[in-house]
Amino acid sequence: MADKSVKKVVLAYSGGLDSSTIVKWLQTELGAEVATFTADLGQGEEVEPARHKAITLGVKPEYAFVEDVREEFVRDYVFPMFRANTVYEGQYLLGTSIARPLIAKKQIEIARRIGADAVAHGATGKGNDQVRFEIAYYALEPDIHVVAPWREWDFKSREALLDFAEKHQIPITKDKRNEAPFSVDANLLHSSSEGKVLEDPGVEAPEYVHMRTISPEAAPDTPTVFTMDFENGDPVAIDGQKLSPAALLTKLNQLGHDNGVGRLDLVENRYVGMKSRGVYETPGGTILLHAHRGMESITLDRGAMHLKDELMPKYASLIYNGFWFAPEREMLQAAIDLSQKNVTGQVRVKLYKGSVTVIGRTSPYSLYDQELVTFEEGKVAYDHRDAAGFIKLNALRLRVAAKRDRRG
Amino acid sequence: MADKSVKKVVLAYSGGLDSSTIVKWLQTELGAEVATFTADLGQGEEVEPARHKAITLGVKPEYAFVEDVREEFVRDYVFPMFRANTVYEGQYLLGTSIARPLIAKKQIEIARRIGADAVAHGATGKGNDQVRFEIAYYALEPDIHVVAPWREWDFKSREALLDFAEKHQIPITKDKRNEAPFSVDANLLHSSSEGKVLEDPGVEAPEYVHMRTISPEAAPDTPTVFTMDFENGDPVAIDGQKLSPAALLTKLNQLGHDNGVGRLDLVENRYVGMKSRGVYETPGGTILLHAHRGMESITLDRGAMHLKDELMPKYASLIYNGFWFAPEREMLQAAIDLSQKNVTGQVRVKLYKGSVTVIGRTSPYSLYDQELVTFEEGKVAYDHRDAAGFIKLNALRLRVAAKRDRRG
Amino acid sequence: MADKSVKKVVLAYSGGLDSSTIVKWLQTELGAEVATFTADLGQGEEVEPARHKAITLGVKPEYAFVEDVREEFVRDYVFPMFRANTVYEGQYLLGTSIARPLIAKKQIEIARRIGADAVAHGATGKGNDQVRFEIAYYALEPDIHVVAPWREWDFKSREALLDFAEKHQIPITKDKRNEAPFSVDANLLHSSSEGKVLEDPGVEAPEYVHMRTISPEAAPDTPTVFTMDFENGDPVAIDGQKLSPAALLTKLNQLGHDNGVGRLDLVENRYVGMKSRGVYETPGGTILLHAHRGMESITLDRGAMHLKDELMPKYASLIYNGFWFAPEREMLQAAIDLSQKNVTGQVRVKLYKGSVTVIGRTSPYSLYDQELVTFEEGKVAYDHRDAAGFIKLNALRLRVAAKRDRRG
Amino acid sequence: MADKSVKKVVLAYSGGLDSSTIVKWLQTELGAEVATFTADLGQGEEVEPARHKAITLGVKPEYAFVEDVREEFVRDYVFPMFRANTVYEGQYLLGTSIARPLIAKKQIEIARRIGADAVAHGATGKGNDQVRFEIAYYALEPDIHVVAPWREWDFKSREALLDFAEKHQIPITKDKRNEAPFSVDANLLHSSSEGKVLEDPGVEAPEYVHMRTISPEAAPDTPTVFTMDFENGDPVAIDGQKLSPAALLTKLNQLGHDNGVGRLDLVENRYVGMKSRGVYETPGGTILLHAHRGMESITLDRGAMHLKDELMPKYASLIYNGFWFAPEREMLQAAIDLSQKNVTGQVRVKLYKGSVTVIGRTSPYSLYDQELVTFEEGKVAYDHRDAAGFIKLNALRLRVAAKRDRRG
Repeated sequence: MADKSVKKVVLAYSGGLDSSTIVKWLQTELGAEVATFTADLGQGEEVEPARHKAITLGVKPEYAFVEDVREEFVRDYVFPMFRANTVYEGQYLLGTSIARPLIAKKQIEIARRIGADAVAHGATGKGNDQVRFEIAYYALEPDIHVVAPWREWDFKSREALLDFAEKHQIPITKDKRNEAPFSVDANLLHSSSEGKVLEDPGVEAPEYVHMRTISPEAAPDTPTVFTMDFENGDPVAIDGQKLSPAALLTKLNQLGHDNGVGRLDLVENRYVGMKSRGVYETPGGTILLHAHRGMESITLDRGAMHLKDELMPKYASLIYNGFWFAPEREMLQAAIDLSQKNVTGQVRVKLYKGSVTVIGRTSPYSLYDQELVTFEEGKVAYDHRDAAGFIKLNALRLRVAAKRDRRG
Repeated sequence: MADKSVKKVVLAYSGGLDSSTIVKWLQTELGAEVATFTADLGQGEEVEPARHKAITLGVKPEYAFVEDVREEFVRDYVFPMFRANTVYEGQYLLGTSIARPLIAKKQIEIARRIGADAVAHGATGKGNDQVRFEIAYYALEPDIHVVAPWREWDFKSREALLDFAEKHQIPITKDKRNEAPFSVDANLLHSSSEGKVLEDPGVEAPEYVHMRTISPEAAPDTPTVFTMDFENGDPVAIDGQKLSPAALLTKLNQLGHDNGVGRLDLVENRYVGMKSRGVYETPGGTILLHAHRGMESITLDRGAMHLKDELMPKYASLIYNGFWFAPEREMLQAAIDLSQKNVTGQVRVKLYKGSVTVIGRTSPYSLYDQELVTFEEGKVAYDHRDAAGFIKLNALRLRVAAKRDRRG
Repeated sequence: MADKSVKKVVLAYSGGLDSSTIVKWLQTELGAEVATFTADLGQGEEVEPARHKAITLGVKPEYAFVEDVREEFVRDYVFPMFRANTVYEGQYLLGTSIARPLIAKKQIEIARRIGADAVAHGATGKGNDQVRFEIAYYALEPDIHVVAPWREWDFKSREALLDFAEKHQIPITKDKRNEAPFSVDANLLHSSSEGKVLEDPGVEAPEYVHMRTISPEAAPDTPTVFTMDFENGDPVAIDGQKLSPAALLTKLNQLGHDNGVGRLDLVENRYVGMKSRGVYETPGGTILLHAHRGMESITLDRGAMHLKDELMPKYASLIYNGFWFAPEREMLQAAIDLSQKNVTGQVRVKLYKGSVTVIGRTSPYSLYDQELVTFEEGKVAYDHRDAAGFIKLNALRLRVAAKRDRRG
Repeated sequence: MADKSVKKVVLAYSGGLDSSTIVKWLQTELGAEVATFTADLGQGEEVEPARHKAITLGVKPEYAFVEDVREEFVRDYVFPMFRANTVYEGQYLLGTSIARPLIAKKQIEIARRIGADAVAHGATGKGNDQVRFEIAYYALEPDIHVVAPWREWDFKSREALLDFAEKHQIPITKDKRNEAPFSVDANLLHSSSEGKVLEDPGVEAPEYVHMRTISPEAAPDTPTVFTMDFENGDPVAIDGQKLSPAALLTKLNQLGHDNGVGRLDLVENRYVGMKSRGVYETPGGTILLHAHRGMESITLDRGAMHLKDELMPKYASLIYNGFWFAPEREMLQAAIDLSQKNVTGQVRVKLYKGSVTVIGRTSPYSLYDQELVTFEEGKVAYDHRDAAGFIKLNALRLRVAAKRDRRG
């Protein structure tokens, strides 16, 4: 099944055991030269060790790529997505989904630079991530070869995989001997836990699967209150302090973490067709969603808001399914971005034991403004009698239908 | 402006001062015979006193109608709406909106029974409720006369209105001399507070406007956990105890109240064109929304769920705008109801200091089922290689476009 | 690749050369017992010869199924689809797509009856029909084996296939030696032509590919005018003559044929990812689409109509992509069907050299009615002044925004 | 009712009798200074005579504005609308709707220039045009006074109006004594006829109401074939000849006229609540719609096309209802415009006795390209086996549901 014609492959590389095994498998089974790409997406682990590990595995030093992409990730992926108040299936903030296109894009850029003819990733054959990686690869570089080792190799068991790793002298820490009790993905926006102990959706997720938040019960007994400034739909400051996108999200994550904010336990529908259960923690993103809605509530026109709300489920599905680089996602983004030009101002946010509440909103571009609501006399002044005509004409078709039904 | 041809009018009557003033105004200014209709919607006040007050005001005893409509309200309005996971502008659970069509329907039924040629309500000329009442009236009885005193009378000030009330010997309690610091609507689903002290959206809502919930800070330090049973999309039992719709919502309200659940402070867009700020408390409804989503998460097909999510914003706007009896609302309801036939099972819910978390879901109709996920060998078994083809064909159009762009 | 475990397979069988070759291939390569199903969908060929041919190929007489499904096809598939004014990509009337689920359903029913463990079809691996057949199979019988010979056998060329046929004594008429200049699908709703001479979308389709219509140029110089009666959204009579669904569509096809109506030459987007060019002829369907819209224009409420128009593209894609039996298609159908309850009355239609024009519409349930438009005095009467209020409140949000922008 | 505080008013002025009467009424009843604005929108009448007539009525020469806005109309309004393949209620090409915002914008610009405090139009109180004019006025100049004489004056009959005109020495040609048998609107995109002889939707529209097209029966017996070149979604040349937007539409109108193309007889739903019957002629626009779809069919990605199709009904309603300058229309436009960047190439069009057929499409940016469809070996090559996986995963959720239903 594996494509032995591949000559040089850029692998999305975490530095972990499975990832390292893939390096070796690509080298030995495919006979390909391997370049590794390790992104610092804010997953909470150093990336330099991954570089060294890659070199140990035989990757040329100049082919062991690492990059801190946190600012790009938040500025060009996370914030645009939050402009749409995006939630998948009513709840999921798409923390994993939104990181995949960026990693794919970086891999393709490296492949072009070093003349690689293939890219590879370590996502399994049952999940969404394989789809997200590969659709992004193909959209950016239509002739690239894609290697998906988890779909292609023939290790029949974890034992077989570990034997292969051992044979190739990949160090296996003791705790890796046994499979983890759940699998994890993490970046600056969120962490997710799936599988094993979480597989029965009837059973509560154990406390120990959480890594980004303390429990609401453990959070302080007094609320935390702060302000967030927005410019054109994006947050730019916390408590008056201007922060870069990644720094701001980091700060929000800390605030969320400390107040038990952003936990989500849900069963979702995967693009590949089955339901799966996940536990997500998106502390900063959860705050951002509420704050952004609050900012929009006084600055966004009703027609624009309702159109956004109608478009959002499709936009969310596109991101979830891996179509970030598809033209229809870009079309929706153009519409959404246009709506944000006056989403500027400040909201006050209160966090308390897991909940986020917007308790105040102000804006120089407010559409809710004392002066505007009252209006100058004789100008925009709201006339009660207008309501009568408004109602009459809105009801007209229903009256006609009611008369018809009576005849019928 | 007032239509003096009106002979007999059915008024939506609360028993309060303003409502009583309207009775007198209809009698004296329009010279109409007045029938009053007071519904027990679970607003938390007895309705019998309203009957007596109406009679005192000169309404014939047999024309002072009161009715307990709580079961009908929850069964035929609230539950159908929650089947759609309905939220307006991402947040509002439509507690006021959903009660109006029922009141209007009852008024029209009474009007037919007693041969009245008109109906009246006490909603103001700047709000949504006038629209909701009147569109419902017209949709059900296209030739009915509608009297909206707040748009029609010429009291220039609250003083003038009070003078009129006094002149007609309507008892005015001392606290009514001064306008309330905010205005209130309540029923079994929610209470809302608007206006006056809440008018500046930059200022936090004071604790004292809340009436249905204690504050999260005041709630118990230990979570409350219970189960909810659903049948075909509607809740039917709490902790295994079967309850009628209204009894169930009452119970949920108590649970929500005690745990500080269901507070919402938002700026919304009214149908009549301006933004307004409201504080809503929907303790039971907030729990129901989460629990219903949880129940759907394991029982509802992905295609059905995503279609529901796409239709919901429109469905919510229709209810918010007063189009409950419009054919397009009924069309959407037909689609939504069809989707609920297997939304049956049990969810476990945890309440803690303002937050609602679904911590378990089980169902005899689960689409997430160990047996199903694993599948019998050789039958539905998920083959990893299928994913490759799935991705390839989903990406095909993007590859073709990428090649085109390269040429271009 | 072929699944040799298959024991008994129900094949969608046309009686043609390719279809007959599949019978032999299933028998010899899979070692399976073959049952054939030949549907009379109005494709314009007798089905009894197919039964005999199947028996000649070794199919048990009691396993050579033929059925006239024309009425079921039109009543349960074509008419429901036309209630939605369904067109895919703005133009295509889905004539091929809508027949597939019915054939699949019949195959599954036969499979259950005779205890077959598999079904098979003759659609190729590049088209949409394989998807439509198989999704329907799986939706109705999740554990069925599906055999798709065109994706599975290893004939490298048409020659090889013909050799196989010859070897198995399948009669090959001379004209079948060479591939047809285009491929064809036909049923009572339409015929389609694709491939070969039609592959270049820059070149006009030759006249000879058309089989269901004469050319507009060849059509009579005088128009044909007739009436169509509708009941609840479906046509029931032509020129006052009640006709069964299939008889009615047959009659419409004749009228369309004679007037050069219903030709379509387009490039469409296949579900499997590429663009393809097809020439479709849907004479009766084209008339029905126009007539149904005409009937709705006076009987359907605006809100219902606009909702239908918004839902239609998704509904069309679902049918095109093969999701007839998916819950979201059924949800949309429920909404659409509900809207049709008063789509009853008569339209007059004019056909002339390729065009269809509705020139009159009447209905006992008309919402356009002289009596209603004028209204009784003082009742629904349209008051010009209502328009002022209607406009003012609809414009309010835009005025507020314009004032804001001025300040900004 | 009329607002006597108005000092200077800019009237949308056609030069006709009604329009001239409005000038006098504004001058005498409101005591306002009147400026007239007459646009050449391609309605087929000279505009200079309107200037002279205005001056005769007492309008200052420098306040009698005329402007040829044809290029602006087609370039900035008509073409952007056609990028979306816009049709209202499945049929209407919005010829009247799309002209209103431009006229309104020009009036507002003049009002600013000459310091006018009001604008006025001659639309009636039962139609859509009043809404379109006024919403545009308010969106652009929120504090402007709007005068709608037809809603405000108290002429009880046409006689009274004519008496007023006579009294003010407005010349009344004999044929104006009697009301026209139908009312007309025209611009470069279309002409419309409504009312009187057209009021019964059961009766065919008489031939004489048509003004922009000869009848299909009168059209030539041989087809007219020509090419249209598109760039980024807009037509730029006919038969290789580059033309300005207005010149191109004029040319298309001629071609359509000569071949009986673009007639439409329909009953539509007005925004103000009633159904109305109109006869529209949009010869050039009808050709453009087909040609643009043809151009998109080979250049537009499927995802982009389907999104456009889903958004179109809302976009059409926004234009029909007068919300051209609303933010949600601009958001949709941004999405639509983005999709058009490669809608470039050439289509061949055939006109014949009322029908338009695209008979060929070519493009340097084609997504349907022999080279692409076949692909280089081993690169994008379509593998039949991919289809199996594609189908399997798309069917997975339905299989799971079918198994569930079986258990149920």
